[in-house]
Amino acid sequence: MGTKVGILGYGNLGRGVEAAVNINEDQELTAVYTRRDPGSLTINTPGAEVKSIAELDTGKEDIDVLVICGGSATDLPEMTPKYAALYNVIDSFDTHANIPVHFANTDKAALNGKKTALISCGWDPGMFSLNRVYAHSVLPNGKDYTFWGRGVSQGHSDAIRRIDGVKDARQYTVPIEEALNKVRSGSNPELSTREKHLRECFVVAEEGADKERIENEIKTMPNYFADYDTTVTFISEEELKRDHAGLPHGGSVIYTGTTGDGTNKHVIEYSLKLDSNPEFTGSVLAAYIRAVDRLNKEGSYGCKTVLDIAPAYLSPLSGEELRAHLL
Amino acid sequence: MGTKVGILGYGNLGRGVEAAVNINEDQELTAVYTRRDPGSLTINTPGAEVKSIAELDTGKEDIDVLVICGGSATDLPEMTPKYAALYNVIDSFDTHANIPVHFANTDKAALNGKKTALISCGWDPGMFSLNRVYAHSVLPNGKDYTFWGRGVSQGHSDAIRRIDGVKDARQYTVPIEEALNKVRSGSNPELSTREKHLRECFVVAEEGADKERIENEIKTMPNYFADYDTTVTFISEEELKRDHAGLPHGGSVIYTGTTGDGTNKHVIEYSLKLDSNPEFTGSVLAAYIRAVDRLNKEGSYGCKTVLDIAPAYLSPLSGEELRAHLL
Repeated sequence: MGTKVGILGYGNLGRGVEAAVNINEDQELTAVYTRRDPGSLTINTPGAEVKSIAELDTGKEDIDVLVICGGSATDLPEMTPKYAALYNVIDSFDTHANIPVHFANTDKAALNGKKTALISCGWDPGMFSLNRVYAHSVLPNGKDYTFWGRGVSQGHSDAIRRIDGVKDARQYTVPIEEALNKVRSGSNPELSTREKHLRECFVVAEEGADKERIENEIKTMPNYFADYDTTVTFISEEELKRDHAGLPHGGSVIYTGTTGDGTNKHVIEYSLKLDSNPEFTGSVLAAYIRAVDRLNKEGSYGCKTVLDIAPAYLSPLSGEELRAHLL
Repeated sequence: MGTKVGILGYGNLGRGVEAAVNINEDQELTAVYTRRDPGSLTINTPGAEVKSIAELDTGKEDIDVLVICGGSATDLPEMTPKYAALYNVIDSFDTHANIPVHFANTDKAALNGKKTALISCGWDPGMFSLNRVYAHSVLPNGKDYTFWGRGVSQGHSDAIRRIDGVKDARQYTVPIEEALNKVRSGSNPELSTREKHLRECFVVAEEGADKERIENEIKTMPNYFADYDTTVTFISEEELKRDHAGLPHGGSVIYTGTTGDGTNKHVIEYSLKLDSNPEFTGSVLAAYIRAVDRLNKEGSYGCKTVLDIAPAYLSPLSGEELRAHLL
């Protein structure tokens, strides 16, 4: 009998978690919880139930860990503290500025309920955060740079879709090679937003829409595009479906630092190249399901982040096996 | 008052730890312990003492953590368990096959003495091990590859120096680009030893020595060179000093795995490019000094590896600061 997993929310990320749980032999998906009509949802796991989100409120659902796959803007700030009082939970909250408040709210709820919660898990925040902390700790005299892409930004794609006359859109965030090379050289450059990434937009316009206006609205959109060099390419709906169906992503954390009197330079680089952003993120969440379940059984309650969890907790292997084979 | 650090052994690694401790504002080197005549040693830290190794036997030295900078073949198997009974200790034991025995001996001693010990810390084993475990845990369907270099192998350089007629030598381990690219492509190649790395040797011969014999002895040396493509270049002593004085090193852990039904591939790569192997290794040890000191103060006794320690323990920043700035 493996760890019993519940998934709340069955969008891209929920399906990514489901796929990962089904690969992990020590885990078992028991139910997907949804705000939609449960009867309308078909999931990929034979034997797992589809239930209404309302069932969770009883606190009696037979799950060891609930993975909450909601949006960071409005879903998670409410859902994670609420369910952390009743179940061990994991989320992928990624609004960096609001992490301290979200942590405090979740910590209080989880401690009250003697549950273990993990917030902001995934690859950034998540695996990238780990690498920033390890690098800063090892080389205090240094600087970290994070690059994202080449990959699809769903938030930016959505922003384009909200423009009048746009039928569909896909936006790629692309790191600028010249900036990457400057950083890797150890020269510690100061880089503006525009110098680090560019934004490629593929847009399907409604018939008869004013493409010039759409392009201008994209390129001047504050926060999303105004600070970047942005390219806009209009394509047909067929081309979008054929060439841009996937959700690839990735990126790098590059840390350059010195030791001794500063003459010796060191470069630490962690990079991801992902065919499917939601399936990889779901896989990170699934590894941490194992950790959260173990921590709770050890009596370690309250809210955690990936920084608070020892690597061995993520692995199905025993300490002996890890030391013999992977150390 | 910072964490009081003792260093046992003042070779390349001991000096690397010293340099790192002096950069960490919350740490203070109190003494270097040596098997040599303490009077013969000049260290780089004003105010720190040089003492005989015999002083450690009292168990009364005023240090929070002792970093044991000895060789894995004969020094550490004896020293680490011995001093783990008396002090919190860290070593960089790197004979992979003997880690289980070394762990067991050290664990027993540390538990008896209510001390905290960390073995096999550095970059491999160490930072590379962390990355192997994180990657295997996140993507169970996958494979890890470790490449070393381009960098100086001190063990291989020493092996060449033991050949009759050799005055000095420097050996570089070089990863083969074609193998790296195959791995990064996600094709999961099976690679022989010869396909992964080549070995470049720069040799200063004694006057009148038979260079052909030396080259042949190097290239056919079992374990060290026979399984590799090896180049031997004879150079003058001046050239060795001028062009090969440093101890650069580095390498990569590359993990390729799939998710879902196996169609989506992912590549995780962690790489290091180090101007000074001993100064970087010393910096890793210094970050873990902080962790060992904290764990001991929390009452977490016995032997650990880097896999057992949460990343936050390595940082001088508080949990709040880490969540606000690096998560």
